[in-house]
Amino acid sequence: MSKDETPDQAPEATLELAPVELLVCATCRSSVQEQTDPEAARPGALLSAALSEKAWPDHVTLREVECLSNCTSGCSVAIRGGADRWTYVYGNFDGANDADVLHEGAVKYASTPDGVVPWRERPVHFRKNCIARVPPLNLPD
Amino acid sequence: MSKDETPDQAPEATLELAPVELLVCATCRSSVQEQTDPEAARPGALLSAALSEKAWPDHVTLREVECLSNCTSGCSVAIRGGADRWTYVYGNFDGANDADVLHEGAVKYASTPDGVVPWRERPVHFRKNCIARVPPLNLPD
Repeated sequence: MSKDETPDQAPEATLELAPVELLVCATCRSSVQEQTDPEAARPGALLSAALSEKAWPDHVTLREVECLSNCTSGCSVAIRGGADRWTYVYGNFDGANDADVLHEGAVKYASTPDGVVPWRERPVHFRKNCIARVPPLNLPD
Repeated sequence: MSKDETPDQAPEATLELAPVELLVCATCRSSVQEQTDPEAARPGALLSAALSEKAWPDHVTLREVECLSNCTSGCSVAIRGGADRWTYVYGNFDGANDADVLHEGAVKYASTPDGVVPWRERPVHFRKNCIARVPPLNLPD
């Protein structure tokens, strides 16, 4: 390609980011909310509904999933994306009330190739409520 | 294929199981052990060494990994394997003392196509110390 044909784009625009999935546990009854009505909508369902109203990058998909086995720290989400990213599980979300902070943290995650957002840039909720993380499928040596 | 060419094999023998990785966090200092000597071998390293002495199915790989961000319930492991299996994170292992129970649970996990071992067949430690699980990449609808 000659110099004249080189696209005039910033490096960010040419970076190919793997698709990301934000998985919201729609099963559990939150430990941070009193659930006196067993028929009431579950916190994860409320969180998921609030998240679906947000603007997301094209490569992010939002899905409700069944139990993430993190019931003592629900409601919970898992976020993953491609063979080079770490998978993170975060907990203790207060239903729809935490949609903004989760959106912020998930968009930052989705902007990285490896899923590792610098510590100081993570929302405080993410720093304090990381339940676990799992290494990328393409494990660094 | 004619009837005569049909291999005379039990269904189990023809079941192709995806490779499994057992990832042992070698970073954290266990919360279940007093670590008075900062230079002492870490529980995850001791657990990993003990596991490496065990007999494993050919499709199971054991690896030490860095922090699984489950430090309050260390030492920890993650187990995963292929696009159809759930990934599980287990914690609160007492170093090499729990190598047998982890081996038992991991071998059972590796024998399943989806990673879901029936509840009653899981080691008690697995039942009581599941930190989180993440759905398969091939999410059921």
